[in-house]
Amino acid sequence: MKLLEDRILNEGEVLKGNVLKVDGFLNHQIDPELMKLLGDEFARLFKDSNITKILTIEVSGIAPSLFAGMALNVPVVFARKHKSITMDNNQFSTTVHSYTKNITSKITVSKNYLQENDNVLIIDDFLANGQAGLGLIEICKQAKANVKGLGIVIEKSFQPGRQLIEETGTRVESLARIESFMDGKIIFKGE
Amino acid sequence: MKLLEDRILNEGEVLKGNVLKVDGFLNHQIDPELMKLLGDEFARLFKDSNITKILTIEVSGIAPSLFAGMALNVPVVFARKHKSITMDNNQFSTTVHSYTKNITSKITVSKNYLQENDNVLIIDDFLANGQAGLGLIEICKQAKANVKGLGIVIEKSFQPGRQLIEETGTRVESLARIESFMDGKIIFKGE
Repeated sequence: MKLLEDRILNEGEVLKGNVLKVDGFLNHQIDPELMKLLGDEFARLFKDSNITKILTIEVSGIAPSLFAGMALNVPVVFARKHKSITMDNNQFSTTVHSYTKNITSKITVSKNYLQENDNVLIIDDFLANGQAGLGLIEICKQAKANVKGLGIVIEKSFQPGRQLIEETGTRVESLARIESFMDGKIIFKGE
Repeated sequence: MKLLEDRILNEGEVLKGNVLKVDGFLNHQIDPELMKLLGDEFARLFKDSNITKILTIEVSGIAPSLFAGMALNVPVVFARKHKSITMDNNQFSTTVHSYTKNITSKITVSKNYLQENDNVLIIDDFLANGQAGLGLIEICKQAKANVKGLGIVIEKSFQPGRQLIEETGTRVESLARIESFMDGKIIFKGE
């Protein structure tokens, strides 16, 4: 998605450890107009998958998910990274390791909001090592829901996430695919 | 807002400690269509305030903020509750105590995304003891930004939050105002 790539090029900052900081429109300040375009694009890509629910994970997956949910006319469920006081034990759960933050979190989804017959589109902001995606696929497996695909805003294609997700038989659609950070310069796939 | 009150009545659960659980459309599963209506209503209420930025706090303030931001054509910034690896020290910060979770968190906003001349609409999901709202007002004060108001989805009017916020000279607009939980029954103000 050219518009997204341009925003990444203009505003993204490459930090050490191959961390891409896009705090200007996605991870801290959010551009609602851009999020709507991303959400609409996810909806277009999965329009034939009879999606009944979008599953994401707090925090930065929520914005594009909401607009995809609006376009597909389905609810959005976000997995929680911490057990909340208002959460009972009626939940699916697994653990997810974040290499960026070097922490392992428990993620949970209430059994009330994910059903056996759901056709789920999983959406997240980044795909790098694929751990969050695998965790969300595992949550869907526990629910016996059908994973119809993974929609990603920014994929770091030089990391193993896509391959790990595809090995589960899951379709992956990324709106921007970064092939490398060469000397801090962002190179997209296919350039 | 009648539609919101109906959803709260139909789907809300009153837990002990006066916690209202609305996980079906706001705090875990999110209804994008409802969020758009809430966001549009915030935009209508503050249409004459020349808003240049919406400030909220992760996680559940993000959804209504996005649609308000879309309607007002301004960016949304969410305060973070934890210091992230991709956050430098160029930030405004304060601490916020959550009575519901009984934890005190540091909240931060990057100095890149809140400016001296910003006219800020603060949005959050709940107003109870007002601590998150006061924290966000304090962040705006550090930035020398103008707080134009606080938009709240659900106010628990029997708790001191509104009074504390109004004492700072801030306009408060809540889309649903709960007067009491009488024997687990939800009573709205003005009924």
